[in-house]
Amino acid sequence: MPIDLTDALASLREGRQSALALLTDNLARADAPACELAFLRRFDADARAAAQASDLAAARGGPRPPLGGLAVSVKDLFDVAGHPTTAASAAMADAAPATLDAPAVARLRAAGAALVGHTHLSEFAFSGVGINPHHGTPRNPATAAIDDRPRIPGGSTSGGAVSVAAGAAWAALGSDTGGSLRIPAALQGLVGFKGTARRVPLGGCLPLSPSLDTAGAITRSVRDAALLDAVLSGAPLEIDARPLSAWRFAITPTFMQDELEPAVATAFERALATLRSAGARIEERALPALPRVAELQTQGGITAAEAWAWHHARLAERGDRYDPRVALRIRRGAAITPDAYQALLDARQRWIHDMTTSMQGTEVFLSPTVPLQAPEIAPLLHSDDLFFATNARLLRNTAVVNLLDGCAISIPCQHPGELPVGLMLWAPASHDAAVLGAAARVEAALAAGAR
Amino acid sequence: MPIDLTDALASLREGRQSALALLTDNLARADAPACELAFLRRFDADARAAAQASDLAAARGGPRPPLGGLAVSVKDLFDVAGHPTTAASAAMADAAPATLDAPAVARLRAAGAALVGHTHLSEFAFSGVGINPHHGTPRNPATAAIDDRPRIPGGSTSGGAVSVAAGAAWAALGSDTGGSLRIPAALQGLVGFKGTARRVPLGGCLPLSPSLDTAGAITRSVRDAALLDAVLSGAPLEIDARPLSAWRFAITPTFMQDELEPAVATAFERALATLRSAGARIEERALPALPRVAELQTQGGITAAEAWAWHHARLAERGDRYDPRVALRIRRGAAITPDAYQALLDARQRWIHDMTTSMQGTEVFLSPTVPLQAPEIAPLLHSDDLFFATNARLLRNTAVVNLLDGCAISIPCQHPGELPVGLMLWAPASHDAAVLGAAARVEAALAAGAR
Repeated sequence: MPIDLTDALASLREGRQSALALLTDNLARADAPACELAFLRRFDADARAAAQASDLAAARGGPRPPLGGLAVSVKDLFDVAGHPTTAASAAMADAAPATLDAPAVARLRAAGAALVGHTHLSEFAFSGVGINPHHGTPRNPATAAIDDRPRIPGGSTSGGAVSVAAGAAWAALGSDTGGSLRIPAALQGLVGFKGTARRVPLGGCLPLSPSLDTAGAITRSVRDAALLDAVLSGAPLEIDARPLSAWRFAITPTFMQDELEPAVATAFERALATLRSAGARIEERALPALPRVAELQTQGGITAAEAWAWHHARLAERGDRYDPRVALRIRRGAAITPDAYQALLDARQRWIHDMTTSMQGTEVFLSPTVPLQAPEIAPLLHSDDLFFATNARLLRNTAVVNLLDGCAISIPCQHPGELPVGLMLWAPASHDAAVLGAAARVEAALAAGAR
Repeated sequence: MPIDLTDALASLREGRQSALALLTDNLARADAPACELAFLRRFDADARAAAQASDLAAARGGPRPPLGGLAVSVKDLFDVAGHPTTAASAAMADAAPATLDAPAVARLRAAGAALVGHTHLSEFAFSGVGINPHHGTPRNPATAAIDDRPRIPGGSTSGGAVSVAAGAAWAALGSDTGGSLRIPAALQGLVGFKGTARRVPLGGCLPLSPSLDTAGAITRSVRDAALLDAVLSGAPLEIDARPLSAWRFAITPTFMQDELEPAVATAFERALATLRSAGARIEERALPALPRVAELQTQGGITAAEAWAWHHARLAERGDRYDPRVALRIRRGAAITPDAYQALLDARQRWIHDMTTSMQGTEVFLSPTVPLQAPEIAPLLHSDDLFFATNARLLRNTAVVNLLDGCAISIPCQHPGELPVGLMLWAPASHDAAVLGAAARVEAALAAGAR
């Protein structure tokens, strides 16, 4: 099997495999136990047609489409023509089929993606855990090779990450409001890129929190992340190709490195050492405004307020069909008055100003994506307290970047035989080309160091 | 009365008037016959509180908020906390009150706007005419001084433009999918700025066509347009302040100048002559791709397809409560298959490429905003054929810029005693600072020329 989408495209180009043969392999993997519950609905026939169209174009001597007729999955939050969008919620079970692809989906299709199915998620994309009481919780396939305890996939793009980790898709279209691309990527040993919000259109995507929602992809490599970003944004970035030693990296000692699980701290410190020995300059920077992020999150913050705005009528009508944990967190937004919401938006802008001012001089910050490794599913099913505490820990670092209106990528930094750990590279808004360029160098240095 | 919002702010700053006195005048004008039907609901008490808060801040020696507690209206497409959003449709009459301000509304409120009310529109923002069978059609107040025939306000931001033209608000928050800010501005002698899509958040705004929708404001001057854009986008532009003679302007002979009403042609040619005599260099440029815009609009194009995607379930359930003309135009989207939609999106991207390539070398294009002056309401009420034909003519030039993903501003170019005519300055995406900077110079030169 090719190592990533870019490699699979090379395989097509060199005539080593057909798109249909590659897709057939993906679909077989989608049927395998490792991928159980990853998909809420499958689009096999349409996916085969896209693969065949790519092969036909090649057979006629023409160019293949940019995504080659290769498998991409779609979070069940984005409209796909002919299928309902249900956000993995029983409260949406009667949704009518979408008449159109969401613009982001349309861009994938136009680029020749074989859309293999709608993937599972935390209901309404509102948790970082990935547990879903309506349709069950997919197991984390990346940890199955390490131990046989069912561990969470991470969320909210749970099924999307599983589809990539289990080889059913080369990339997964998802969304990230507080970490929903980066958390499952980190917990499953994948790459999750949350570009600057607004770069990828959100039309036809069910909103969670319009001030923070970002569409993007989970992939197997940084180069695939750049490729998907180019397709999804319609505006290919000129990726910064400087060598590792030319970047101004920093870590920040407070908040982002607080209370790390020992295995995460070990992997993170080891990654920094590997990067330094490969020539990276990594400063330590104080970001005194960083802990104030908590003030933006009282009562559930902007997300709860905006989720309540969208959901309140539906909750009144059919709240009994919601995941009670999701409903409870959305209802926190009811207590946020319009004035308090306004104050939150204002405080966010002041905080962004303070943060970006103190970040000047550094190009890319390095932090653990998530302070813990994928916990087991079972205890989280039984204890609400543990669930809410774990959810808050999972989202802690990633949500900083959404509130910052910034961009970030999570790349794996565990060694073979270890549970996955994510390394997050992050920067203020519109530094997407820097984050992707630096991540490509870091990914290569870590791969060399792990050998 | 101050001449525009900037002037009113100066009046506050110099202590000549209080915000409450100015607002009281606005509210009286909102009650006057010229403003009849402009508002679907009023927020007088909240508006007074905002004005008083501004005055109190000044009395305490502090700074006033950026919008000074002055009157701004909101199209009934944007959520305002505590009030329903009905899109001027009977099919939305039972909408629950919004719990939160839409982000664009929140930015206005945070900047100290006194939000005076929700304004009228073409149902679901889907026509350039401004006729609405549910709540009646506001008369164009700018033409009432010229003749006493009830003329259309233009749409879809009909009531928003009337609120500004009749002095009930200094600026109107609206949306523009095919011309809905610029058409009513042109027909009412106002300024309508459609910035590059995505600059102003569309959360909490009822969608018409996510690929083309843009939020922005109608104002009394170009400087007010820049001020509102800074507040709404959260990212103040550095307006290009070169003199008129330093700009590379162009007109394009085909399409945009086809079949102009004689009065529009006269006003447009006179404006060009005035600008040239003030030192402007205006080339004539062929844009051979321009007429191909029609191919993007067959069967209602992207707008009909995307509107159908949002409306089809609602139309099935309560289509009898829609304006039949709006329902008919939305239903055209049902005939656009997902493949045809995809083909439209692809064709649009190719067309944007061809257009922007041939536009290179010119900074700002000049065209009539609308090829006709405001027609009378009565004949349009009685004839569907005339309505659809007029609607297509009204939208013809402005929709080009939405499909181009560009930015544009309409400024008045009629002389005193004439029915309003709009002059549109337009450019590709992200040239907002150029369009606003050039428009400020053009506005000044036209004002000097009309003296």
